[in-house]
Amino acid sequence: MSKLDEVYSKLTIKTGAKIALVVLDGLGDIATAAQGNLTPLEAARTPNLDALVQSGCAQGRMIPVAPGITPGSGPGHLALFGYDPIEFEVGRGVIETLGLGIELKAGDVAARANFCTLDAKGIVTDRRAGRIATEVCERLCRILSSKIKKIGTTEVIVLPGKEHRFVIVFRGTGLEGPLTDTDPNREGLPIASAKPVDGKNAGQKKVAKLVADFYKAALPLLKNEKTANGFLMRGIAHQPDIPTFEERYQLKPACLAVYPMYKGLAQLVGMKKIEGPQTVQEQLERYVKEYDAYDFFFIHYKYTDKAGEDGNFAAKVKAIEDFDAALPLLLARKPDVLVITGDHSTPCALKGHSWHPQPVLLHSACSGSDKLDRFTETGANIGSLGIFEAKYLMRLMQANAKMFDKFGA
Amino acid sequence: MSKLDEVYSKLTIKTGAKIALVVLDGLGDIATAAQGNLTPLEAARTPNLDALVQSGCAQGRMIPVAPGITPGSGPGHLALFGYDPIEFEVGRGVIETLGLGIELKAGDVAARANFCTLDAKGIVTDRRAGRIATEVCERLCRILSSKIKKIGTTEVIVLPGKEHRFVIVFRGTGLEGPLTDTDPNREGLPIASAKPVDGKNAGQKKVAKLVADFYKAALPLLKNEKTANGFLMRGIAHQPDIPTFEERYQLKPACLAVYPMYKGLAQLVGMKKIEGPQTVQEQLERYVKEYDAYDFFFIHYKYTDKAGEDGNFAAKVKAIEDFDAALPLLLARKPDVLVITGDHSTPCALKGHSWHPQPVLLHSACSGSDKLDRFTETGANIGSLGIFEAKYLMRLMQANAKMFDKFGA
Repeated sequence: MSKLDEVYSKLTIKTGAKIALVVLDGLGDIATAAQGNLTPLEAARTPNLDALVQSGCAQGRMIPVAPGITPGSGPGHLALFGYDPIEFEVGRGVIETLGLGIELKAGDVAARANFCTLDAKGIVTDRRAGRIATEVCERLCRILSSKIKKIGTTEVIVLPGKEHRFVIVFRGTGLEGPLTDTDPNREGLPIASAKPVDGKNAGQKKVAKLVADFYKAALPLLKNEKTANGFLMRGIAHQPDIPTFEERYQLKPACLAVYPMYKGLAQLVGMKKIEGPQTVQEQLERYVKEYDAYDFFFIHYKYTDKAGEDGNFAAKVKAIEDFDAALPLLLARKPDVLVITGDHSTPCALKGHSWHPQPVLLHSACSGSDKLDRFTETGANIGSLGIFEAKYLMRLMQANAKMFDKFGA
Repeated sequence: MSKLDEVYSKLTIKTGAKIALVVLDGLGDIATAAQGNLTPLEAARTPNLDALVQSGCAQGRMIPVAPGITPGSGPGHLALFGYDPIEFEVGRGVIETLGLGIELKAGDVAARANFCTLDAKGIVTDRRAGRIATEVCERLCRILSSKIKKIGTTEVIVLPGKEHRFVIVFRGTGLEGPLTDTDPNREGLPIASAKPVDGKNAGQKKVAKLVADFYKAALPLLKNEKTANGFLMRGIAHQPDIPTFEERYQLKPACLAVYPMYKGLAQLVGMKKIEGPQTVQEQLERYVKEYDAYDFFFIHYKYTDKAGEDGNFAAKVKAIEDFDAALPLLLARKPDVLVITGDHSTPCALKGHSWHPQPVLLHSACSGSDKLDRFTETGANIGSLGIFEAKYLMRLMQANAKMFDKFGA
């Protein structure tokens, strides 16, 4: 733990205050000429957000990881949960597995995998096996998982994803990552062997042997498959040992997310997953019902990011307006501290995640007012929170919940 | 010394420039609906500050310690003096002693103490002895200090504070803190023994023995006192070894403060205390008289904080206007670099210190102009200094005093 984290920890007191963190995934955007020089937040009609802002809010912008770094969903959310995403790195295999809705246990080693095509000499001829249909992937995974349940005493779990993608989980004792990829990263080369990143690490060496043994057992099962007679593994890593949210912040947390990936990330830090809600209306109604049972609510809304990834400006505006229309459901039982933000920006013009700091709005009895009329990127630039690293957001929420004693006399 | 501090140190050159740091204690505030959506700085009539701003100033806001952390006066001022308050932590006993106007020497170990009430079995029945009158506290301290002047070769100093509060200082050789409190933190338990925080530290072990011996000598002296027959010690720590202000910045510093706490904090970093002035007018007149004798003036004004602590908006506005009225006295001999800021925020709505970044104004021949008309929190949000950690303020003052060589070619 860093010295600063130790200070935060020593100063923390329980207050029973309620905190809600609403993540509009990929909310941040950039204004371009093609968009009439507006961001989706600026173009959207948001009467309920406007009223909230005018009632007194602090705004700012958050650097998700570090200047210029575009985060995936994992690091983006870890930062929002107050974990330095550079210090707490979560392997892609783990993230991918969480995204499939699989519960990982501490020490599990997970890898993401692609089905691929090999020639007679074992040379990779298509790293994605022509992007086989998801049904084919599911059939191939069934073959592997029905025939390979264990290697020695280690349990093996094989699960299909979309198209050529699947995940492999090793569950046993003494396993550790990370290992190098078996993916040679281009066609014309054989499958690489997975090597311990730290050659002296016994857990990594054990996994290297498991991977080799898995290949020995699996490749013969696929040898008569024409389109996908091999596979490549990437991001082989173990579920990291992360201090739980509750011990770190003295807050009992719940997750209201619809998509498995975000439930998985919440679970990674020990949040309780509340299952059921499928729409933002249902999520916010459920928040009101569960208000007394938890101290902290992570509420995830996916559609802003989806629209951004599609480069669909109108859809992103619509997603923001849809959220705005649902917001009064949450305000029916206003938390003591309410934050609305994104996990990163997903500018329509870029059709993907970006490094641009996402706007953040914080409302509490002691947030003060930045005297802005709306919640937008341009307004947030001049807010009292400034432009800061996302990992500090949790500390600002705790401060606004009066969870910190004074530091020094 | 951090690598960055080494760089600053190597680049530093003496220029003979004069720097004045005016601290309006607890200046920062938040705008709330109850206050007409204004902060005290915004509500105050400040013609002299306005003229200064319009003549060309840089503004910004400062995070006193770290995001969300509310500082006491100690860390707040250490940061203003350019010392990282996380790195240079000063124990509460030391701060409390400084607040009583006692000069501590490097290596002194100080503790703050409360008189308490014990039952026949030595169980704490009232941790604050019914908040006995200050006169009673003074009488009890006289008893202790007249009977216990030394323990072995270590000098013991006992000094009364307000109500049940007093301080105990051990002055000898080889003493070190910190130790755990003897305060059990709740009634129904006996007095705890003070334990070294680092069990292998010889200086801490020596102090643990001193504390135990002090109790053995002191408790019998109090045994017939009905309301306060015991005492509890907290924040047992030594005066830290802090590099002096003059060696760190190549500036000869003077302190113009009225309250003992701030004189003590200035003395902690080796500033010369200028005694005498009791009002802000007298402080600023004295600054002019001493102008040639020092390079750096720390001028402390308490009344903004007092009004904030009382939750008295009108009084905080008045305190700012009173300072503004006196400002021309300082401008009669304008320093080369003038900073006006707070050590933290003390929002009227919170009736206490807070974590909200305080506004800062910097005026020099090379400060440039942020084209703002007034000095306010909202304006400071968009100033050219940005939102930065208070520990860097000294470096900005040095830069404006042209005290830094170019870094690299």
